[in-house]
Amino acid sequence: MSNLPALKRPYYAVIFSSCRTSQGQQDYEKMAQRMETLAQAQPGFLGIESSRGSDGFGITVSYWEDLEKIKSWKAHSEHLIAQEFGRSQWYESFTTRICKVERDYDFEALSD
Amino acid sequence: MSNLPALKRPYYAVIFSSCRTSQGQQDYEKMAQRMETLAQAQPGFLGIESSRGSDGFGITVSYWEDLEKIKSWKAHSEHLIAQEFGRSQWYESFTTRICKVERDYDFEALSD
Repeated sequence: MSNLPALKRPYYAVIFSSCRTSQGQQDYEKMAQRMETLAQAQPGFLGIESSRGSDGFGITVSYWEDLEKIKSWKAHSEHLIAQEFGRSQWYESFTTRICKVERDYDFEALSD
Repeated sequence: MSNLPALKRPYYAVIFSSCRTSQGQQDYEKMAQRMETLAQAQPGFLGIESSRGSDGFGITVSYWEDLEKIKSWKAHSEHLIAQEFGRSQWYESFTTRICKVERDYDFEALSD
């Protein structure tokens, strides 16, 4: 995954921090991929970035035009099923934070 | 790393998304550890969470009481030196986003 292109403010971020259980890695990856594809197809979706270390702790941040679009995505029927699997099988713990991005700045190294 | 304890709103998040170069892994880790310790000692610091995948893409989110405290941390002399190393050696690209957390919720699995 690489850094996203610049986004036009105002926009919102959903920070999802999670500890994976050791269960169902294959199913989890399939669902995570499906959710990313589905999120990208939602109105107001601006981008997503994600990383997970070898200790099982991961952070996914998705970016959205406004709070209403975030609410719609949270309530999407297929996403609700994934959330249920998340709570019952895939995550030991997670925190979701909905944020308004107030400022942002980028850096890109000059290639040699 | 694990999920943080609940934080009291209002609070702010700094999302730092970055692609590592392949340079200086040992120096980088040492500096990253030092910066985390230093950040924790700053006024207004509330917590930090971080993950980096095997592809070199990572996300670190630090949480702060207010924008003023974030500004002070950005301008901290030792942090400025680390930022300079970051641009010249450690990062291919990065994005920093300063956000106001509007809502948050947690989940923790019941232990068996």
